[in-house]
Amino acid sequence: MKIEVLNIGNELLIGQVVNTNASWLGEELNLAGFMVNRIVVIADDGDEIISALSEATLRADVVLISGGLGPTKDDITKDALCRFFNTRLIFNKEAYENIEGFFRQRNLAVSVINRKQAEIPESCIPIQNRHGTAPGMWFEIERPGSTGKVKIVSMPGVPFEMKAMVTDSVIPWLKKVFPSHAVVHKTIMTQGIGESFLSDIIEEWENQLPSSISLAYLPQPGIVRLRMTASGSDGKELKTLINRETEKLLAIIPEYVYGFDDEKLEDIIGKLLIRDNSTISTAESCTGGYIAHLLTTIPGSSSYFRGSVVAYANDIKESELNVRPETLTRYGAVSEEVVLEMAAGIRTKFKTRYSIATSGIAGPAGGTVEKPVGTTWIAIATPEKIFAKKYLFGDNRERNIRRTALQALNLLRKEIIRASK
Amino acid sequence: MKIEVLNIGNELLIGQVVNTNASWLGEELNLAGFMVNRIVVIADDGDEIISALSEATLRADVVLISGGLGPTKDDITKDALCRFFNTRLIFNKEAYENIEGFFRQRNLAVSVINRKQAEIPESCIPIQNRHGTAPGMWFEIERPGSTGKVKIVSMPGVPFEMKAMVTDSVIPWLKKVFPSHAVVHKTIMTQGIGESFLSDIIEEWENQLPSSISLAYLPQPGIVRLRMTASGSDGKELKTLINRETEKLLAIIPEYVYGFDDEKLEDIIGKLLIRDNSTISTAESCTGGYIAHLLTTIPGSSSYFRGSVVAYANDIKESELNVRPETLTRYGAVSEEVVLEMAAGIRTKFKTRYSIATSGIAGPAGGTVEKPVGTTWIAIATPEKIFAKKYLFGDNRERNIRRTALQALNLLRKEIIRASK
Repeated sequence: MKIEVLNIGNELLIGQVVNTNASWLGEELNLAGFMVNRIVVIADDGDEIISALSEATLRADVVLISGGLGPTKDDITKDALCRFFNTRLIFNKEAYENIEGFFRQRNLAVSVINRKQAEIPESCIPIQNRHGTAPGMWFEIERPGSTGKVKIVSMPGVPFEMKAMVTDSVIPWLKKVFPSHAVVHKTIMTQGIGESFLSDIIEEWENQLPSSISLAYLPQPGIVRLRMTASGSDGKELKTLINRETEKLLAIIPEYVYGFDDEKLEDIIGKLLIRDNSTISTAESCTGGYIAHLLTTIPGSSSYFRGSVVAYANDIKESELNVRPETLTRYGAVSEEVVLEMAAGIRTKFKTRYSIATSGIAGPAGGTVEKPVGTTWIAIATPEKIFAKKYLFGDNRERNIRRTALQALNLLRKEIIRASK
Repeated sequence: MKIEVLNIGNELLIGQVVNTNASWLGEELNLAGFMVNRIVVIADDGDEIISALSEATLRADVVLISGGLGPTKDDITKDALCRFFNTRLIFNKEAYENIEGFFRQRNLAVSVINRKQAEIPESCIPIQNRHGTAPGMWFEIERPGSTGKVKIVSMPGVPFEMKAMVTDSVIPWLKKVFPSHAVVHKTIMTQGIGESFLSDIIEEWENQLPSSISLAYLPQPGIVRLRMTASGSDGKELKTLINRETEKLLAIIPEYVYGFDDEKLEDIIGKLLIRDNSTISTAESCTGGYIAHLLTTIPGSSSYFRGSVVAYANDIKESELNVRPETLTRYGAVSEEVVLEMAAGIRTKFKTRYSIATSGIAGPAGGTVEKPVGTTWIAIATPEKIFAKKYLFGDNRERNIRRTALQALNLLRKEIIRASK
C-alpha cells in the first residue's frame, strides 16, 4: 500500500515555514504500520494542485493532502478539488453546525466568509475538525487498471487541526481499509546524557538486538529518546520481545531513564505528587518561570503546584526568598549557597513538601573565566534534605533554559521516588 | 525559470528528520530572486530516483537534488544518476585530492570506501565539497521541445555541506545562466484578531493590491502574520510599492499590528523598556510563569525584567500579592477585581514601572456556566493607570496559555507606546 503526502502552501516553498506536517505524518503513519512513499510540496495554485494530484493518484493508493483550506482568498484547494473530481461545492449542515459551535463558544457570530467554510465538494465525506472551522474531506476514485479505489483525504494545514483529524479519523479508517502487518514500538525516554555517550554505554546491548528490532536515537534539547521498532506477523510475540529488551536496557542505564513513550517529566511528576497528596513550588532565576510553565501545562496541576517566585533581580532573591545579602555578596548569585537558600526560602514561604531552585548564566552574555556561560546550579528541597548540583551546559540561551528545567525536574522525580521507598 | 527540489532519504519519509534542507533552499533561492516550484521527497531507491528525476526534468529548468551521496550501502544516488544520464563512474583526480586533504587534516588515511567517493559520473562537472568528502555534481541535458538545457545539480544531504555548495557555487552559477527578477517580501505581524475577521476588515485593501503583490495569511496560535510578496524587474520600485501598501494597511488596523518580519512581542517590549530605562514584573495565575518565560528568553532581559510571582493557589494571591480575602470570596479568582489587585500588588512589591497580571480558566476542567473554560482576565498596571480586560479563548489549555500571554504582552506594548507619546 503506497501513501503519498501532498503539502500545499507557498510558505513551504519559500522556506518561511518548515514542513513539520510532513515529518509528523511520516512518523505517525509509520507508528501505525504504514509507510509514506513520497512527499510533494506545491504552491497554492489550482493547476499545480490538479497536476500533482493526477500524478499522485496514478502512483499511490492513498493521497493525504494538507493546506489551502482556510477561509481567505489565497486558499484555493477546495476549488481545485472540485475541478479534479468534477464536482461542485454544496452547503453541508453538519459542517456548518461545527463552525457555529466553534464561534458560539467564543461568543461570536458566524461571518459570511466563515459560513462559506461549510460548503464542501458534493462527492466527499466530510471529516469533523475538532479544533477549527475547515472540515476535512475524504474522496475515493477509480484508477484505470487498478482493482481498489484510490483514497484522497484533504485536511487543513494548521498543524493541530490536521493532527487531530489524522489521529481521530484518518488512521483508524486506513487501518480498517488496509490490513497492515504488526508493528510494535517502544520509546525509552532518557535525560542527562548526550547521544554519543549513551551510544557508547549501550553499544553491546544494541549489537545483540534481534534482527526484527530496529533502534533509533531521537535527540531533543536535554533529552534523548531511544525508539525500538519491531515488525513481524505476531504482535503479541513482538511485544514480549520488545519488553524483554527494555528490561535489559533499564538494567544498564537506570539513572538516565525517566519514562516511556513520549511521557513528559512534568506529567510524571504530577502523577507522583497526586499519588502522594504532595505539593511543589519553584524559585527560579535563570529558568525565568519556565519550570513553573512546564508544571502548569499539565491539566489539574493546581492540585499540587502552589506557585513560584521568579527572582531575576538579586534584591528580589533577598526580599522574597530570604537569601541573605552576605551570601549573595560572598558567593555571587550563581552559587551553591544561593541556590540552596532559594530552595529553602520558597519551600518555607509557600508551604510545600518539595521545592526546586535554579540559578545560572543562561547567556549569551554574563560569563566569566570562573563561571562561563552555561554554568548552572540546581537545588532540590524535601522534608528530609536539601542539596544542590552544578552543571555546565552550552552557549545557547534557549537550550540552556530547557536543559536546566529538564535536569531539575528529573532530580526532583528521583527524590520523590526515593522518599516513597 | 522553474526550480524543483528533490530530497532523497528514507529518514525524511518516516519523520525521523525534519526537512530543513528544503526550507533553507527555498529561502535562499527566494532571497536570490528565484522561486522553488516544487519539492519532492523520495526514498533511497534507484527506481524512485529515476522516475522522480524524469518527471522533474520535464517540468523544471533546474533540478536541485540532495541526499544519498554518502559512502555507505544505503547511499545509491550516484548509481541512479549514471543510469539516468546513461553514463558511468570514473575516477576524478581533483575530487580525490579534496578527499585526501580532508583526511590529512584529521591525521587519517583515506580508506577504500572513501576513495570510492572520488568516482563520479563521466558526464558531470564536479562541485567542490568544502566541508566533506562527497563532491557535488552539475549535469545538463536537452529537453525535447525546449530551447535551453535543463540543469541538474546533485549535492550531499548533510546540511552544512549542502549549504556551502549552494552559497559558493550553485547560486552564483544560476545567476549567470538565468537573469533573475527582483523579489521583495514584507511580513506584518498581527495579534488579537482571527484570520477570518482580519480578512473581513482588510478585504477592500486586499482587493486594491497591485497585481505584482501577492498576499498570504500565516496564522499561529494567537498571531496572524500577513506576508506581502512583490516580484518584478526593479527591486527598488517594488520596495517602494510594498512600503506604500504597508502604510495603507497600518492605517486600517493600527491596533492589531505589533511588528514586522517575524519580530517577537517579547523582543519588541524588551527594546521599548530598554529605551525608556524602564522595568517590568508579572503576577501570573493561569499563565503559570509563561509570560515570565517569554520575557526571559530575550538576552539581556535581566536589565528590565525584575521578577514574577506565579500565584496558582489562592492563599498565595493573598500573602504574596496582597489580594484581599474578601475580593477572592466575593468575586472569585477569575475576576476583574482580583486581577486588578494582583497587578497592583506585584507592581508595588517588585518596584517596577509596569506590571502584568493574569487569571483565567485554562481548562480542560474548572469551567462553569458563568465562567466557561477559556474565560480570562488580564490586567496592566502603569504609573498612570491600571485596567483589566476580559477574554474568552478556546478549550485547549496550551493554546489558552499562549494566547493569554501574547494578548497581555500586546496590551502592555500599547500602554508603553501610549505613555511615551
